[in-house]
Amino acid sequence: MLAAIGEHGAHIGEIETIAITRAFNIRDVTVLAPNDDAVEAIRASIAALDGVDLVAQSIDKVFAVHEGGKIAVRSTVEVRNLLDLREVYTPGVARVARAIERDPALADRYTWRGRTIAIVSDGSRVLGLGDVGPLAALPVMEGKALFYSQLVDLNAVPLVLDVHDPAEIAETVARIAPGFGGIHLEDIASPGVYEVERLLMERLDVPVLHDDQHGTAVVVMAAVLSAARLLDREPATLCFGQVGLGAAGSAIAHLARSFGFTRVVAYDPDPRAIERLEEISSREPTPLQATSDPSGLETVMDAADVVVLTTGRAGLLRSESVRAGQVIMAITNPIPEITIEEALEAGAAIATDGSIVNNVLAYPGLFKGALAAGARTITVAMKRAAAEALSAMATDDALLPDALDRRVHALVAERVAAAAG
Amino acid sequence: MLAAIGEHGAHIGEIETIAITRAFNIRDVTVLAPNDDAVEAIRASIAALDGVDLVAQSIDKVFAVHEGGKIAVRSTVEVRNLLDLREVYTPGVARVARAIERDPALADRYTWRGRTIAIVSDGSRVLGLGDVGPLAALPVMEGKALFYSQLVDLNAVPLVLDVHDPAEIAETVARIAPGFGGIHLEDIASPGVYEVERLLMERLDVPVLHDDQHGTAVVVMAAVLSAARLLDREPATLCFGQVGLGAAGSAIAHLARSFGFTRVVAYDPDPRAIERLEEISSREPTPLQATSDPSGLETVMDAADVVVLTTGRAGLLRSESVRAGQVIMAITNPIPEITIEEALEAGAAIATDGSIVNNVLAYPGLFKGALAAGARTITVAMKRAAAEALSAMATDDALLPDALDRRVHALVAERVAAAAG
Repeated sequence: MLAAIGEHGAHIGEIETIAITRAFNIRDVTVLAPNDDAVEAIRASIAALDGVDLVAQSIDKVFAVHEGGKIAVRSTVEVRNLLDLREVYTPGVARVARAIERDPALADRYTWRGRTIAIVSDGSRVLGLGDVGPLAALPVMEGKALFYSQLVDLNAVPLVLDVHDPAEIAETVARIAPGFGGIHLEDIASPGVYEVERLLMERLDVPVLHDDQHGTAVVVMAAVLSAARLLDREPATLCFGQVGLGAAGSAIAHLARSFGFTRVVAYDPDPRAIERLEEISSREPTPLQATSDPSGLETVMDAADVVVLTTGRAGLLRSESVRAGQVIMAITNPIPEITIEEALEAGAAIATDGSIVNNVLAYPGLFKGALAAGARTITVAMKRAAAEALSAMATDDALLPDALDRRVHALVAERVAAAAG
Repeated sequence: MLAAIGEHGAHIGEIETIAITRAFNIRDVTVLAPNDDAVEAIRASIAALDGVDLVAQSIDKVFAVHEGGKIAVRSTVEVRNLLDLREVYTPGVARVARAIERDPALADRYTWRGRTIAIVSDGSRVLGLGDVGPLAALPVMEGKALFYSQLVDLNAVPLVLDVHDPAEIAETVARIAPGFGGIHLEDIASPGVYEVERLLMERLDVPVLHDDQHGTAVVVMAAVLSAARLLDREPATLCFGQVGLGAAGSAIAHLARSFGFTRVVAYDPDPRAIERLEEISSREPTPLQATSDPSGLETVMDAADVVVLTTGRAGLLRSESVRAGQVIMAITNPIPEITIEEALEAGAAIATDGSIVNNVLAYPGLFKGALAAGARTITVAMKRAAAEALSAMATDDALLPDALDRRVHALVAERVAAAAG
């Protein structure tokens, strides 16, 4: 059967075994076909095979939509004749180069730098897939770049790196940094990514954002603010619980405190995650309560009014652990720690999951605002401003606004820029 | 006066002293004004100053056309709703990532990689400006990128590097290489760039082209082929002279031999340039004649029927040295070794200069063809095919076709791809 598929110019994708019996096996075979004719030809070839039946066929557009990539570099100036050419290229461009050499600040005005972000990944922790490497990370980074273009008119260039040591990643990014107005770190494995982030923030004078930490934290906190508003409660009166202290979880626990959640309890089974969080929070007036004790999950569920789960463990939270009136945000994708329905049935006042808490709400406006303000870093105040703007734009009972609404991102950018000032 | 300019939000560009006398000084001050109103306001402010007269004013569009940069990254897929989002981003993109992880060759189909070039420069030898650094090189690289978009629909990303050691440049490029289908090296100083090129060609499995060498050589050879056709002479019957053996000159001298110029004489005052050329040509059946002797220029002018000059020295060639019937190509920009008019007056049969021999004729089609063919290197056969296609498209008495005609680049790409096969 695989030969029948191959001879029509198609590739084999995933093969999933549905059933194995004495009489027959059922497998779900994903086929990447070049066009609709090939799909028909493959159908016919399979029908002609002895011992193979086509039980069901479903067509999806995922691969079609990725064909040729999802972004392009386009000229914004049309060169129609030799006079145009002499302006955009030699000899005219020499004067622009000279002007920038004398006054480097002009680069943000006379090149694309002032509106261009590098999206950097080594492919070591992509989505829920793990370490797929730089090449397989590329379609994901293109997806991120697409939203910069569509939502806030920034240019984003995916740069996937064939190097994984944190110091080497940072060194590579620093070397290509002159041409970019900001650095967006994405899907780089923890704990190495913390070192990458720290080195780059020390070295570069443009904003550096690790989206998996800070982008996620901003969107979660926006949803938390909306939940508090719906419950008509002030953050100071609520205990905030964080389960899972990876990149996203530790950033959320940390950011929660700056929103007035004076009581934060946190749990992660890995003692190193606790150590890292305590080290960060030791510089602050009141320490976080964090534990790696096996009973930590129950401790958090008992104490917290708002519980955010970022554990990567599908179905971790049992209904019995949910207390009446709690806010439950189970962020793990694609299958959450507890479904929205289960959480609400178990008595939660408000529940949401990772399909609703989408990072694309935060990073475009954060960078748009930071670049507009000429900010050299993305501060806690800027992240707070972004979360507050997102929560303010959520209507009716929704926790968050529509991620595809450009007005949402314009407001986030405006508030972030104001907070940067 | 500078304060008067500054207070209207304008920047000072170049200041050129035209005349200094006892009574007055005349200076040509380039002002980068944000808009036409600011220009008027500056005029008024200057008119109001004591002791300053505005002698003349000229307005040019060079800075205006560079405003905000000359290229942009745009999404090629519109995300209108949550269903679209689930296809281009999570969860859909995870399947594309998995497919590429299993079969890396799919990346050229399902990401932008297969049509995307990195244009890499460290800004160490930009145009005729010299070492202006990476930031000031950026508008020049954007100019190169613009033509990839406009002429052959490829994506080109300028990457300007804050590192200058050849091994470190090569290492940096190799680390970011997974996301690119080709590497275009530009405006990196010799001799370091030869080492960068060699290291990258050894290490990467995508085409690497140093445009200053090979792009220039292809366009010059196209013009030379046209000149031979106009003179109705075969290359084997003509002596080819190359004056100046920098990056462009050595590549031209080398490429000339593969076009059937069996006799090549070359001159450069730097003995290291001669040594390098002889080392390259020592692997070939007949050695090049190259000299660094002070009389070398006259030796070449005496012997050669076709003389190409790439010396970087404006006005180097005196009319008396030109022999009747010679072909003279004085490529140095912006002021050539001898003007077209002077060369023709001195008896040259055909003369051209660097404003006509434009690199933009070669690199877009070279990479378009190489990518279409899946070529891992750009071979001499591919460069020959490009030069022959360019010469074939030149009409009437012109040596080269219109650089802005997309059909020219389409033919170059087609012939390059065929030669790669």
